[in-house]
Amino acid sequence: MAKTGVTAPLGFQAAGVACGIKKSGEKDLALVVSDVPATCAGIFTKNVVKGHSLKWSRKVASRGTARAVAINSGCANACVGEDGDRDAFEMARLVSQLVDCEAEDVLLGSTGVIGYRLDMNKIEAGLADAFRSLSPDGGNSAAQAIMTTDTFPKESSLVYDYEGHTITIGGMAKGSGMIHPNMATMISVITTDANISRKMLDRALRSVADSSFNRISVDGDTSVCDKVLILANGLAGNPVIDDEGPAYSAFENSLRAMATELAKMLARDGEGATKLIEIHVKNAPDRNTAHLILNAIAKSPLVKTAIFGCDANWGRIITAAGYSGAEFDPDKLDISLGNLTVCKNGTGVPFDEETALEILRAPEVVITLDMNQGTVADRMWTCDLTNDYIRINGSYRT
Amino acid sequence: MAKTGVTAPLGFQAAGVACGIKKSGEKDLALVVSDVPATCAGIFTKNVVKGHSLKWSRKVASRGTARAVAINSGCANACVGEDGDRDAFEMARLVSQLVDCEAEDVLLGSTGVIGYRLDMNKIEAGLADAFRSLSPDGGNSAAQAIMTTDTFPKESSLVYDYEGHTITIGGMAKGSGMIHPNMATMISVITTDANISRKMLDRALRSVADSSFNRISVDGDTSVCDKVLILANGLAGNPVIDDEGPAYSAFENSLRAMATELAKMLARDGEGATKLIEIHVKNAPDRNTAHLILNAIAKSPLVKTAIFGCDANWGRIITAAGYSGAEFDPDKLDISLGNLTVCKNGTGVPFDEETALEILRAPEVVITLDMNQGTVADRMWTCDLTNDYIRINGSYRT
Repeated sequence: MAKTGVTAPLGFQAAGVACGIKKSGEKDLALVVSDVPATCAGIFTKNVVKGHSLKWSRKVASRGTARAVAINSGCANACVGEDGDRDAFEMARLVSQLVDCEAEDVLLGSTGVIGYRLDMNKIEAGLADAFRSLSPDGGNSAAQAIMTTDTFPKESSLVYDYEGHTITIGGMAKGSGMIHPNMATMISVITTDANISRKMLDRALRSVADSSFNRISVDGDTSVCDKVLILANGLAGNPVIDDEGPAYSAFENSLRAMATELAKMLARDGEGATKLIEIHVKNAPDRNTAHLILNAIAKSPLVKTAIFGCDANWGRIITAAGYSGAEFDPDKLDISLGNLTVCKNGTGVPFDEETALEILRAPEVVITLDMNQGTVADRMWTCDLTNDYIRINGSYRT
Repeated sequence: MAKTGVTAPLGFQAAGVACGIKKSGEKDLALVVSDVPATCAGIFTKNVVKGHSLKWSRKVASRGTARAVAINSGCANACVGEDGDRDAFEMARLVSQLVDCEAEDVLLGSTGVIGYRLDMNKIEAGLADAFRSLSPDGGNSAAQAIMTTDTFPKESSLVYDYEGHTITIGGMAKGSGMIHPNMATMISVITTDANISRKMLDRALRSVADSSFNRISVDGDTSVCDKVLILANGLAGNPVIDDEGPAYSAFENSLRAMATELAKMLARDGEGATKLIEIHVKNAPDRNTAHLILNAIAKSPLVKTAIFGCDANWGRIITAAGYSGAEFDPDKLDISLGNLTVCKNGTGVPFDEETALEILRAPEVVITLDMNQGTVADRMWTCDLTNDYIRINGSYRT
């Protein structure tokens, strides 16, 4: 065991236990606790339909301080009416009694099937078990407990020094279907021992999420329970970061690097995925054009199945760009797979099929679309679309 | 042989031949000819990238009269630079010599892989062969020749009487991947012996396409070659339809019925599909809300895999509605699968799993979302997402 993920920073303990919500008997309840009250911020799904646990967490995050995060997998606690709100409150209250804080200091997460109530007896026993199991080495265990169809737990952490102070940022995340920009079925919890004001923590999280979590797509579906939460407990002892100076920049850059690693893990572990696909748009006329095109390519089932089949069918890439809603001159587009140019000025160029096959067989495939009509660049990550996606999602509920 | 599809109306002949573009040796070139000059109209892809044959057809359609339509499958004639425009013109010129008209009277279509030039020697020999084979019974043969990954040829026709005149409308279409509203990889050719002005023909086509072809989705991809063409040669001898009176209404309604049949065939034959899914949104506050929600549900890979797996996972349906971009009150939604209510007022209700399974095992599944917050209704068709979609699209080009 090691201090990984959410337990990498000073003063955080975590645990993951099996409380019986998942029929498989796998871990399904995670608890993360800060030794001292922490500043917190959150970003929540834009879905009009919102899970009950998520609604509770939004309220907590708007207050700005938290001691603990409790997340169950196997049941979304969504679309069950007022019972769901009561269950969420009860879950927070149970944690608050164990940790000795207010229910309003407890962030929640629930992920899994929609339309079924949480079994509160299991939750109550599970939370007590998790509390007993809390450990400064418990990050990995917690990361396991929030998994749904994920094939591996996702953790990352990063340490940086700033003017004599060592600051650590750690995080865990779960995917891996229903993933798309704007907080899809993703749940991520990030912890740090940095001393930072609520306002600057919120700003850093929003800026970073936009270029990391909001730049991945698995299937274009956005779930009702998705969120990124961050807790900063200040135990690193640095002077409080409360404006946009260099201390803030150092923090934001480190947070971005850590979050980008987590985001790429989510894309790589997209349901049924065999490959990570990184898409670059270069020399675009503006940010919106770049984003529309990235988004269309990352969502296209035809592009994603072609990459799965190692088929250099770049026509599907230019097609997706064309229907993205962006206005542009298609006759200026260059497209490359890895370093291999397959389309120049909107027209196909002869290329070596063997070289293409080698590039497409790799576990990471980079698609570059050079628009040659501006200076803006952006990138996004997705995964291939495979038989296993169908297998996993054709029988999820049963 | 019978007078089906595009050869059902008076004065149309058609043929489908194999000219060698498809490596499989299957039919790949269709020719449809009207005995007399016909009024024509067209709707074309909104993709920014446009195929060369399509660009030619747009020009022809804007002139408003045509004698013939030539369509090849196996090669999209797209993204090959100026050569592609020259090849399109040459194809039209070859047809015009055979049929004895102007090149500008020849509509074209090309569907298949992007980025490769048409083999004009094969096209030239194939067009001569097709011209020799023209027959008033050739509709089915032409419908076969425009297929790409379609598993069956799609034809429909309809006869109606109006004040002593018998008017026939026939059509053929091809799908079946890259299908999504706004002229996806779909090509459809509709013929009629009605006597109707260019203006009213264009109006009828636009109105009808919006509620038929633009209401189906297979995978959300919109291709660069998609179009619906209609030719009206007037041989039914009815007084010209040139305003919005009852004769126009009778024509538009009949055209709508015929086009809706074709559209449903396209959805049913979506790549790898085993089921036709019909989605209804009822009691929506406005048309835009209904459309956003229909669209999100029809595109959701999670909804489509759940239906494939006969899994009554209605949480994915409400989730898709929630992220559709529409603003609404989720607590008023009722959801049914067939006649089985699974969600009432945004909250799951207990239902009999055996009954649900029986409904989902049928070849046609109806999903109804009653919003209970308005009076607008709309519907859309899609298909399930299966292993075969991946198999077909993982190796299309090779």
